[in-house]
Amino acid sequence: MGGDKAPEMVIEGMDLALKRVPDARFLLFGEEGRLHELLRKYPKARVATEVRHAAEVITNRCKPSVAVRSGRESSMWKAIAAVKAGEAESVVSAGNTGALMAMSVLQLRTLSGIDRPAIATYFPTQRGRTVMLDLGANVVCGAENLVQFAVMGEVFARQVLDLEQPSVGILNVGVEDLKGHDDVKQASLMLQNANLPIKFHGFVEGDDIGRGTVDVVVTDGFTGNVALKTAEGTARLFGYFLREALQGSLLAKTGALLAMPALRKFKQKVDPRRYNGAMFVGLNGICVKSHGGTDAIGFCNAIRAAERMVRHGFNDRITRDLERLMSAQGGSRPTVNGVVAPLSAIGSESAHP
Amino acid sequence: MGGDKAPEMVIEGMDLALKRVPDARFLLFGEEGRLHELLRKYPKARVATEVRHAAEVITNRCKPSVAVRSGRESSMWKAIAAVKAGEAESVVSAGNTGALMAMSVLQLRTLSGIDRPAIATYFPTQRGRTVMLDLGANVVCGAENLVQFAVMGEVFARQVLDLEQPSVGILNVGVEDLKGHDDVKQASLMLQNANLPIKFHGFVEGDDIGRGTVDVVVTDGFTGNVALKTAEGTARLFGYFLREALQGSLLAKTGALLAMPALRKFKQKVDPRRYNGAMFVGLNGICVKSHGGTDAIGFCNAIRAAERMVRHGFNDRITRDLERLMSAQGGSRPTVNGVVAPLSAIGSESAHP
Repeated sequence: MGGDKAPEMVIEGMDLALKRVPDARFLLFGEEGRLHELLRKYPKARVATEVRHAAEVITNRCKPSVAVRSGRESSMWKAIAAVKAGEAESVVSAGNTGALMAMSVLQLRTLSGIDRPAIATYFPTQRGRTVMLDLGANVVCGAENLVQFAVMGEVFARQVLDLEQPSVGILNVGVEDLKGHDDVKQASLMLQNANLPIKFHGFVEGDDIGRGTVDVVVTDGFTGNVALKTAEGTARLFGYFLREALQGSLLAKTGALLAMPALRKFKQKVDPRRYNGAMFVGLNGICVKSHGGTDAIGFCNAIRAAERMVRHGFNDRITRDLERLMSAQGGSRPTVNGVVAPLSAIGSESAHP
Repeated sequence: MGGDKAPEMVIEGMDLALKRVPDARFLLFGEEGRLHELLRKYPKARVATEVRHAAEVITNRCKPSVAVRSGRESSMWKAIAAVKAGEAESVVSAGNTGALMAMSVLQLRTLSGIDRPAIATYFPTQRGRTVMLDLGANVVCGAENLVQFAVMGEVFARQVLDLEQPSVGILNVGVEDLKGHDDVKQASLMLQNANLPIKFHGFVEGDDIGRGTVDVVVTDGFTGNVALKTAEGTARLFGYFLREALQGSLLAKTGALLAMPALRKFKQKVDPRRYNGAMFVGLNGICVKSHGGTDAIGFCNAIRAAERMVRHGFNDRITRDLERLMSAQGGSRPTVNGVVAPLSAIGSESAHP
């Protein structure tokens, strides 16, 4: 029921997804009558779907804390509960991000060793794709959270992007060690000093995202969310200027017509719907958040992102890799100079006088 | 002496700037011998320039705190001192941003009512141009700083962009009141409740920058810096994909050739050099920071940004407007419900139970 054009956009997206993943099956939560009626227009989706009634809807204005307390009859809560019960292998929603995260954490719980889950997505780059996290789950993050994001992002890039040894960078206002606030400086020290088998690149800047300098970009949820949306906005602005220029003269129009197949391919490459589907990582269950403003094509891609994570057995792998990472450095927490220390002490001013 | 291609890029930029601002005169600080030698290649710049020797250079790796203590013989310190002494009307540098800001604050001091200066620049948008600040002067900002940035940004948009009543927004991860961390929430409350004659729009998101939703985007220096560089990186990536697509087939190449004048105009419109020149606002003096990696064209634009601020009498106007704004609401600080309160109390949890 979540998203600007829901629920029809969701059902149309399911219909599209079935073309790529013909064996997908859906549990659809929401207003029973309306969903059954809409499904009539999409016979293929109808056959693959079981509708489950949910009397409530979590709106975008709903506070996450309120949602988890009094939203137990909502489509969102029930959809996540289906994952917890093992009835569904993943949940996809275009609804309220904060509520989806809070409900997922409460029902699915975080993986062992992870304090807070993060939202991750792909960015297109000159070299391929980069994973970035967190994109808004945690508007305030400490150094420990950033280190955990680095670990999860590295596993993600290895398993889902199939990279052998992905490089990891922390987003900052400069690449020099002295740049940035305390949390990024501490996280960088922790990743440098802990014996984690991670290829840590150091700090990267905003323009390194599109450049593809590293395979994994780690940041707090506030900065990550702004960066993601700024990139989307810039891409849209760029497209607007390009259209404007190509419609400016007869010559330009003719040229654009000839180059149309190439321009169409280009447009597809930068289409934000192609990258729709932000993945919650660090939970005992797979949860994908679609953009609220997307259409059926975008929602279809969010479904496919969830399907990919299920197919790759992402959570089994992340758990195994986390354990391997933790044991590789001889403790359940990163160490400084080989001495196991609580994360809060690592890289702090006092530990590095 | 600052910038990747300095000092030649700086001198070539001065030469270019003289074509647009023929009556400009330069004081050039740095390694005397080398500067005189380079100036020989640019006779026009040579005539308009007085070289002043500075034995030291502030490198990019230099900590701002170290720079202000022991960099008094540097070209950067001496250039700022010339503004303080009234010998120059503005200073332009492509060097270490943090050091430039620290030295400017120490020598020029902040305007009355402003605790910390900010770095501002223009962004191209679908509607024209948007001013954004802070872009990296303050990696950690409190709510009070954000409110002061809003006031300075509003004056800037009114005076330099010539807008009658510019709208102001605070960058956040969502537009709803409950979104974001405490500092943005408090700043928003302060701007809503203070009797400042500012058209406050509320929260905006990253994609609102390119959309031109507001005339002034206010944010902390960490987020602003990442957003600026992410936008630049995305524009570069977009250009890369476009070139790639247009070189993909003979048909596309032919089309691109026909559309070349339009594509060139488009390229100019999104050229980051066009927007080079970040302005330090809130200081008793005009200081413009050029991108370190720019070329002569970009540096020329930074010079022109400084010249524009001088010509508009920006600092006189900002001082007058700040006073007007302060007196408009009956005190030197914003008020809550008409009661003058210290900024730290406004919008805080205790003031709004």
